[in-house]
Amino acid sequence: MIPFGLGSSLEGHVIPYQGGITLDMMRMNKVVEVLDRDFIVRVQPGVTRTQLNRELKKYGLFFPVDPGADATLGGMAATNASGTTSVKYGVMRDQVYDLEVVLADGTVIHTGSLAAKSSSGYHLNGLMVGSEGTLGVITELALKVYGIPEAMVAARAVFETVRQAVDAVVAIRQAGIPMERMELVDKRSLQQANRFMGTSYPEWPTLFLEFTGNESGLKQDVNFAKDILAEFQCKNVMFEKDEKARHKLWDARHKLAYAFVRGTPGKKMMVTDACVPLHFLPEAIEDTRKTLDRMGMDGAIVGHVGDGNYHVILMIDMGNENEIRQAQALNEHIVSFALSKGGTCTGEHGVGIGKAKYQREEHGPAYGMMKKIKDLFDPNHILNPGKIFI
Amino acid sequence: MIPFGLGSSLEGHVIPYQGGITLDMMRMNKVVEVLDRDFIVRVQPGVTRTQLNRELKKYGLFFPVDPGADATLGGMAATNASGTTSVKYGVMRDQVYDLEVVLADGTVIHTGSLAAKSSSGYHLNGLMVGSEGTLGVITELALKVYGIPEAMVAARAVFETVRQAVDAVVAIRQAGIPMERMELVDKRSLQQANRFMGTSYPEWPTLFLEFTGNESGLKQDVNFAKDILAEFQCKNVMFEKDEKARHKLWDARHKLAYAFVRGTPGKKMMVTDACVPLHFLPEAIEDTRKTLDRMGMDGAIVGHVGDGNYHVILMIDMGNENEIRQAQALNEHIVSFALSKGGTCTGEHGVGIGKAKYQREEHGPAYGMMKKIKDLFDPNHILNPGKIFI
Repeated sequence: MIPFGLGSSLEGHVIPYQGGITLDMMRMNKVVEVLDRDFIVRVQPGVTRTQLNRELKKYGLFFPVDPGADATLGGMAATNASGTTSVKYGVMRDQVYDLEVVLADGTVIHTGSLAAKSSSGYHLNGLMVGSEGTLGVITELALKVYGIPEAMVAARAVFETVRQAVDAVVAIRQAGIPMERMELVDKRSLQQANRFMGTSYPEWPTLFLEFTGNESGLKQDVNFAKDILAEFQCKNVMFEKDEKARHKLWDARHKLAYAFVRGTPGKKMMVTDACVPLHFLPEAIEDTRKTLDRMGMDGAIVGHVGDGNYHVILMIDMGNENEIRQAQALNEHIVSFALSKGGTCTGEHGVGIGKAKYQREEHGPAYGMMKKIKDLFDPNHILNPGKIFI
Repeated sequence: MIPFGLGSSLEGHVIPYQGGITLDMMRMNKVVEVLDRDFIVRVQPGVTRTQLNRELKKYGLFFPVDPGADATLGGMAATNASGTTSVKYGVMRDQVYDLEVVLADGTVIHTGSLAAKSSSGYHLNGLMVGSEGTLGVITELALKVYGIPEAMVAARAVFETVRQAVDAVVAIRQAGIPMERMELVDKRSLQQANRFMGTSYPEWPTLFLEFTGNESGLKQDVNFAKDILAEFQCKNVMFEKDEKARHKLWDARHKLAYAFVRGTPGKKMMVTDACVPLHFLPEAIEDTRKTLDRMGMDGAIVGHVGDGNYHVILMIDMGNENEIRQAQALNEHIVSFALSKGGTCTGEHGVGIGKAKYQREEHGPAYGMMKKIKDLFDPNHILNPGKIFI
């Protein structure tokens, strides 16, 4: 039994490679109830995040998790998705108050309650989120929602080196500035954007930032951030407040995947997804760039840099076995580096098939307990078999 | 085997009522490593929260969870403690990156990693936090820490009714004002404070608020909050910025327990701990007050009102069986009310012995899965037996 939403997952989560039944969740697409005074919304799993935000806007509320794709909320919970806003709001798991889940034997359970906090019983919410359909099928979610911030400023800051950019990020976070988004885009990515989007971004490591707050606070935050950016030799910085200008400023970040797909016809995109403790991020990105060069590969590096999570975007000719092998070797190298620094093999894309082989190394003896939990919930392995565990 | 920290838990978690071995964790009291550039600290379980904050201050960082008592971090993780700051920073579970845990068979596992986010494997962090020593013994914690906010303003706002106070809280949250603390203290509590602390607080339902942010943002937030408070017929509001004045303003809230203990010699304090969806909170508090009156009991009501979590403080003569029975009946009534509204029997104190009897009702069929998880991790029931489950 494999629950299927929009199929935007990246690690083969919904591929029934052993055969089986695919459950189409897309007709469970109702926003069941907006409990605006409780800052909670109840949704069915097939609701997408933009659909939810259209509904919430009427109440001055929004749901912050933004993985890029307009994924379903059921799928986002199943993989513990996150994205550009997790530096401020946390990941998908942090938003879940309660799940209705159908277990392997047909029992319907609720994993939490509608209370904003609870110390009652074991945290089945947290266990179910990120379990990728291997422990049960999510049939309803109660999620935390937030008041829309009064004001927003977008910024783009250009640096000579990745290290300076990341150092600036650490300093901004230490200063307690409540950043909404902090994204790093490397030189190679901006070259691609300029070539295929007709833009003229400076081709240097660049931070894309988003500040939110009230009007006065934002002004002070932005000024403080300017000082910090200058301290780390920022070559050039632009701020935009107007909605249209903000979108334009961030365009290269938002449309990067598109620039690669459009600029590399006939190839398929592959994206790595490691996460390291923040202070290892410059080293991780430098090591990745060196490895790409050594292997003679073309790849762009982007990072959710407030969290130490970074991706390499590779365009692969699926007919070329050498390219596939190289991509796999690079992925292997990046995962090994992350694990050696106390990080994780997957920051936000999940395990699926692609990262199953790293689970034992990452989790050590805890992996054994995870397997036992799987056997406990699903003794006949009928729920998304072959995912997470091999 | 019962891990024991400072013994500040309130639901009998550390009572070895079936006999057994108490593990004194208090000599595991080292701050192992402050990874300031990663916003992570590694601590042993016997470190207390004020000890940690003394150490973090050197780095301009702090650990936000504040349950009142100067509890150990191991104990706080075991019960998923929270307190006055969770409206801003979340609960203990939200701060845990990784735990080193010794399982029942002696296996040592790590439940997470040092990555700020991860979608790798099952979320054993979340499962272990709040498991109250029934699944394993926590021997080290990696916790999230934060930059100290630039500025802080404390406020006290007096209302005619609890309902007006809570409505103001909802409006402030909807406005997106990032409140650090939002506490409700009822009339009876302030009478007790005035009688035994020599103060002269207006004896009406009162919100104790804390705003943080940068200087300019704070000013705007405070002005906005003033307007909102006025809109909900706030009778009187005071703001204080200076540290000393802030502490004085909040004194009644901080020393409330003390006022009761000092004012009721020979009696023992008992505290209820339910949590309801926010919009049910006025009804919950009104119902509780009516029930206290009907039973002829003396009790004060305080609430972490941003979260819908509220406590009744009762002073009990432990030699008087009727008083004990009445307190139990009140607790039962409060829990039933919370569960009937989709809330929880314990917002932050945990299950221990006191709330074990409500687990089946609160969790329904999920309770069966929790019991199976307990049996899986601890087949011989040697870890804190008799707690959570009965």
